[in-house]
Amino acid sequence: MNMSDARGARERLVVIGGDAAGMSAASQARRLKGPDELEIVAFERGHFTSFSACGIPYWVGGDVPDRELLIARTAEEHRARDIDLRMRTEVTELDVDRGRVRARDLDSGAESWTSYDKLVIATGARPIRPELPGMDAPGVHGVQTLDDGQALLDTLSRTRGRRAVVVGAGYIGVEMAEAMINRGYEVTVVNRGSEPMATLDPDMGLLVHRAMEGMGITMVNDAEVTRLLTGDDGRVRAVATRDAEYPADVVILGIGVRPETALARAAGLPLGEHGGLLTDRSMRVRGSGNIWAGGDCVEVLDLVSGQLRHIPLGTHANKHGQIIGANAGGGYATFPGVVGTAVSKVCDLEIARTGLREKDAHRVGLRFESVTIESTSRAGYYPNASPMTVKMLAELRTGRLLGVQIVGREGAGKRVDIAAVALTAGMTVDRMTALDLGYAPPFSPVWDPILVAARKAAAKIRASM
Amino acid sequence: MNMSDARGARERLVVIGGDAAGMSAASQARRLKGPDELEIVAFERGHFTSFSACGIPYWVGGDVPDRELLIARTAEEHRARDIDLRMRTEVTELDVDRGRVRARDLDSGAESWTSYDKLVIATGARPIRPELPGMDAPGVHGVQTLDDGQALLDTLSRTRGRRAVVVGAGYIGVEMAEAMINRGYEVTVVNRGSEPMATLDPDMGLLVHRAMEGMGITMVNDAEVTRLLTGDDGRVRAVATRDAEYPADVVILGIGVRPETALARAAGLPLGEHGGLLTDRSMRVRGSGNIWAGGDCVEVLDLVSGQLRHIPLGTHANKHGQIIGANAGGGYATFPGVVGTAVSKVCDLEIARTGLREKDAHRVGLRFESVTIESTSRAGYYPNASPMTVKMLAELRTGRLLGVQIVGREGAGKRVDIAAVALTAGMTVDRMTALDLGYAPPFSPVWDPILVAARKAAAKIRASM
Repeated sequence: MNMSDARGARERLVVIGGDAAGMSAASQARRLKGPDELEIVAFERGHFTSFSACGIPYWVGGDVPDRELLIARTAEEHRARDIDLRMRTEVTELDVDRGRVRARDLDSGAESWTSYDKLVIATGARPIRPELPGMDAPGVHGVQTLDDGQALLDTLSRTRGRRAVVVGAGYIGVEMAEAMINRGYEVTVVNRGSEPMATLDPDMGLLVHRAMEGMGITMVNDAEVTRLLTGDDGRVRAVATRDAEYPADVVILGIGVRPETALARAAGLPLGEHGGLLTDRSMRVRGSGNIWAGGDCVEVLDLVSGQLRHIPLGTHANKHGQIIGANAGGGYATFPGVVGTAVSKVCDLEIARTGLREKDAHRVGLRFESVTIESTSRAGYYPNASPMTVKMLAELRTGRLLGVQIVGREGAGKRVDIAAVALTAGMTVDRMTALDLGYAPPFSPVWDPILVAARKAAAKIRASM
Repeated sequence: MNMSDARGARERLVVIGGDAAGMSAASQARRLKGPDELEIVAFERGHFTSFSACGIPYWVGGDVPDRELLIARTAEEHRARDIDLRMRTEVTELDVDRGRVRARDLDSGAESWTSYDKLVIATGARPIRPELPGMDAPGVHGVQTLDDGQALLDTLSRTRGRRAVVVGAGYIGVEMAEAMINRGYEVTVVNRGSEPMATLDPDMGLLVHRAMEGMGITMVNDAEVTRLLTGDDGRVRAVATRDAEYPADVVILGIGVRPETALARAAGLPLGEHGGLLTDRSMRVRGSGNIWAGGDCVEVLDLVSGQLRHIPLGTHANKHGQIIGANAGGGYATFPGVVGTAVSKVCDLEIARTGLREKDAHRVGLRFESVTIESTSRAGYYPNASPMTVKMLAELRTGRLLGVQIVGREGAGKRVDIAAVALTAGMTVDRMTALDLGYAPPFSPVWDPILVAARKAAAKIRASM
């Protein structure tokens, strides 16, 4: 039976994907329209909904004691708000012409079509898993879902050895390095790039590299994993690169993700060069009238470079969901784009970035000056004032801020927000030198480190004229 | 002898006041012009130069172990950079017509005139000391200068009792309350206003009030001090208000300051309604050709209200000094104005504000909506996520951000910078809802508290249309 047969005049909103973007959209649409006006059906293929993937490293590392804490809203809570959430149900086909999706109950295997008046695609991203020998051996773990996290924790509780190899040195990689250090493991990070944190310029990545070594983490750069070696029991026992082998009792993959857009691609929806869905400012899929998409499966406009990027981050997914829900619920909201802000930490080292790196600026044809300064998070004489390094890029001629990168200790990371807002406003570094930022000795030197960088950048821009 | 007689063709820059604004100006001018081109003479009536007045509470409280740490640059260091700094020398007259100042050596009593080609007035502010009986009794202390701080510490080391009364509940008052708590005193704060921190709206001040009580501080509001009572030994023994007496072994005055502009007033220079010097955007005194002024003795443009204010803060003084030094040194720089950002703390309570309070908005005829939200400094499930309250004001119709106030614990205060930059850019709260702020569980909930407030404010503005 086509389920739409049973419907009355009310519209049906179908949501594919029950995580941040999808369920935020469903919740926001529900706030605007009651169940008499709008039926909402959401499909989630996993066991969990609305969970914080970003929290998994802290759960694995022991900072967050309980998996349930990472679930922002359970399936039951969604259902109590009149959202027909179907867990363990995978959408296997999207029929745009007839306005319907086919879904399979993963437990029973039963399939059925559900028609929609409005559709939200929030299929997220899937982790990159290189096709290498040994990738499927026991002891090799991704950390994208709660199921992944649980499987890793189960492995750790069964494993005697204390050597962990983390493959990848981006956010997930360095956060998982911290998690394993916190669990008392010897940690080796194998990184394809020249320095960890490729979202930073290499000179700033070097600071992360050194700090990680200071924490006792073995950092292997410029190293491509060629295979995972297994023991007689079939379990992983080492990670091999072209040059060396790194013994491992557990291997964690933190290589990154790609948009999960197979359904959308098969349905002929427009995808960008990063493989993500293309939307307009209202998060509606380009060329479609009644399909919205958001979260890790879409590309977003970078307001600084003017180009599209794929940035899988929970904070964007939540915003997208809100905006989609407002529009699907008959309201109006738009997503202007991002400036590329991200913050992370490895133990007590804080790492943040926003805007363009040097190579981003080169790629889009922007000429710039770059400065790097050292300052402290608090007044130098105040207890626990910790050193921080700020790198700032500003456009030649115009002096427009292009990007900021920060590496430091407590109090360093969130200062990137100052630059994020300045980037959004298109501010020049000269104007930034007079920003009225909060000052008191426990919070900042009398010149906030961002202002110190702006002054140096502004002077360099002036000198270049 | 008129000292200018001895000069050759080089210009002379005279600076009145050897603290943040004055010595920043001198240093910046020196960077731009060497001693062959520009002679720089600076007069300071006190014993110290370039010290952090904002650091005094932390020195008194014991967080900063040594007075010398509060001195950013000593007189010797300034002199080594060819600045003729004359300590303990007070300028007693300013003769604008003839371009000269009369200065008295406070130790020898000798007076002489010094002519200038360019003049910087950086005379700072003086603490408000109400004319009340007992104000000059031993045991009553201001905390504006290093000499004040030393005198207070000397008193504390000689005093047996452990009861401190702080008069005033602004930044200095609450910071001194913390200092005395840290020294093991029983602390009572006597406050004329209805709640502490009059730079906040009273509803936010109430949160500070309750938190201070939770720290064991006795908070007495709506209380005007009528006299200080002294004992048989002449020392202060209690603070009296109309209704009660508060026993005190030491009394600390934190009532605020007024611009120190007696010299300028006598010289006929233009003063504003707050008693501060009036300058143009280059920090040049209005109507003068060769006189600049900055720091605590000037009024500054509030970019949000469009009105002049007196905001004595080291961070502004340093910026003014830089700008004056650039202009006096033959360069070009301007000060666009402030948005009224301030951050402070009492023990682990962080307090911040920027922009307009409700009464500020009323006073300048702006109509607004106000929202207050509760959130946390980190993801709710992350260790040490601490509650914070954000109040946000936005203009009716336009939705323009008008102000933000924050009261919370660790990680709350510096978030005010996000709002400070948004105010500077004239951003609407609707635009702010999509700001790309740094997110990771150790740093922020997935919706930063500032975004939560912006969303609620934007919804309220929409609903009011």
